Amino acid sequence: MTMTSTDAATEGHEAAALLERTRDLVDPHLRAAVESLPGGMRRVAMYHFGWQNADGSPASGQAGKAIRPALVLAAARALGGDRETAMRAAVAVELAHNFTLLHDDVIDEDATRRHRPTAWAVFGVPDAVITGDAMLALAQRLLADDTHPASGRASARLSTCVIELCAGQQADCAMEERGPDDVTLDECLTMATAKTGALLGCACALGALYAGADEREVGAMDGFGREAGLAFQLIDDLIGIWGDTARTGKPVGADLAAHKKSLPVVAALTSGTAAAAELAALYRGAMNTPDEVNRAAAAVDRAGGRDWAQVCAADRMARAVHHLSRAVPDPAAAGDLLALAEFVTRRTH
Amino acid sequence: MTMTSTDAATEGHEAAALLERTRDLVDPHLRAAVESLPGGMRRVAMYHFGWQNADGSPASGQAGKAIRPALVLAAARALGGDRETAMRAAVAVELAHNFTLLHDDVIDEDATRRHRPTAWAVFGVPDAVITGDAMLALAQRLLADDTHPASGRASARLSTCVIELCAGQQADCAMEERGPDDVTLDECLTMATAKTGALLGCACALGALYAGADEREVGAMDGFGREAGLAFQLIDDLIGIWGDTARTGKPVGADLAAHKKSLPVVAALTSGTAAAAELAALYRGAMNTPDEVNRAAAAVDRAGGRDWAQVCAADRMARAVHHLSRAVPDPAAAGDLLALAEFVTRRTH
Repeated sequence: MTMTSTDAATEGHEAAALLERTRDLVDPHLRAAVESLPGGMRRVAMYHFGWQNADGSPASGQAGKAIRPALVLAAARALGGDRETAMRAAVAVELAHNFTLLHDDVIDEDATRRHRPTAWAVFGVPDAVITGDAMLALAQRLLADDTHPASGRASARLSTCVIELCAGQQADCAMEERGPDDVTLDECLTMATAKTGALLGCACALGALYAGADEREVGAMDGFGREAGLAFQLIDDLIGIWGDTARTGKPVGADLAAHKKSLPVVAALTSGTAAAAELAALYRGAMNTPDEVNRAAAAVDRAGGRDWAQVCAADRMARAVHHLSRAVPDPAAAGDLLALAEFVTRRTH
Repeated sequence: MTMTSTDAATEGHEAAALLERTRDLVDPHLRAAVESLPGGMRRVAMYHFGWQNADGSPASGQAGKAIRPALVLAAARALGGDRETAMRAAVAVELAHNFTLLHDDVIDEDATRRHRPTAWAVFGVPDAVITGDAMLALAQRLLADDTHPASGRASARLSTCVIELCAGQQADCAMEERGPDDVTLDECLTMATAKTGALLGCACALGALYAGADEREVGAMDGFGREAGLAFQLIDDLIGIWGDTARTGKPVGADLAAHKKSLPVVAALTSGTAAAAELAALYRGAMNTPDEVNRAAAAVDRAGGRDWAQVCAADRMARAVHHLSRAVPDPAAAGDLLALAEFVTRRTH
């Protein structure tokens, strides 16, 4: 399952179109679920998803890129299931993802998401925490209410995944408290796998479960999503340092100014180079001027953190493809999943 | 199903013994579940349940009164089920309850629980939020992993209940923001039913489900728990104003000093009496001296808020007993549930 650059370009367009179709398919169901929430929480959730402004008036914003529901539906189809059957699982995974966004923004004190003030910044911390809680419960209710024979196993997998997401977020917070010389690349990779890989793996596994797949296929699908998720995180970390603002809504260098120990940064810090020492010194300081942030970005680059992240992302993608070929031996059937995985790892281009 | 005062005294001792037995039965399972959480969250959870001190050393503290797991197990037994079968549900309900405690303490900025600093006060807001999230996911996983035929319906009920708990907590927060003349007793009762009645109802319903009860019995059990829960909340609100500190760990007048619009307070505020006006004036001020708090408590009393709460608690108990007699016509089989309900509404004596 190797790809030429022409294939890749085609897949990129295909993936973008697939994500758009997924958004169109999933949004009515997602919106119906969110609209079932009691009043106060509904308003916070509608704002968070970009469907309403802070004053409750309608907004036409996008509710994110729909990568996770797209993975659920594509995994179900790749294994002979249909989209309609897996729709509840797709909505549940998207709700669980947005539960983590609501809480992570509170915990990380992030003021901006998708080019708008975060929910806690608009409605306060209590409303953002409570709405996140309700969104997680709603995700679980969708699966529990489902009569599909796999819904119990799907629910167990989603719960286990949420615990791993929490562990990842906690490890992330704990790492931020530590000094720049006190974090290993291994624990950073474990944290990133928990924070990002787990839910992408869960999305693929739920799609497989709803297609009636056996445990071996479900496990391989989980592996595919996890490895692709780590590749995705590596690219996201690169974007967090080098842009681009227009597409992500994040200011350039934001992760550095926040002293985030993202994967490229930790790879640089643990490189034993002169640039590593310079970066560590900057991380010990306030790093609140554009000049310092730019110097930190240059140090990550010179210490090899940028190259390492790009090579590591490619390696993880190779592992993802290997898992995928085990779950879905027919390359034609695996096409959509592969296109999605390639798409998320080419976001910087 | 009427009771003499002698019966009631006997039931009180029985209920206390029953709660102690429940704690002994449930704690090993609860602890095993909590110990399955990844490291950082396990530590916060072990502290929250009173099993560890802040430094991780063992503590012998009590993990609360076990009313909810006792209701699950007693409801299962009352309907011909056994305790072992319903144990997962009992643990799940207790975890869901403690998830709300962790988050509510963050949201309400409460610094003390069970005579100790709250989890967020010791470990910070991020760890308390994340650990609460993981505890909810753990509750759901216990039900999802269960092979009992009712586990799917139990999971759906618990999820629905959590959404109602969130709605109640949000309504509570929203009410705190409003002026003392701007809250009706009806919305206050709805809020209290959501915040407290819903989970006690859910506990009883889950016990019934695990005993293989039909939907009518499950619904009646839910009604029993809900009404008993509202009675419980009314008594808890009275304790929040008039004590007693030694048993609850709450300072006398704490709810008044916090300007809480608890049920007796809102009943007083909406009474149209001179005392109501005095109370409203105190609520509009800072109320940060013991003298002001004492005057507020006296005003609630004179405005009839204290009597109303006691009469309303008795009325709700009567409704609870009516629901119970529908679910479990045999008074002997209903004995433990009745004893538990009577116990929680006699906590002030």
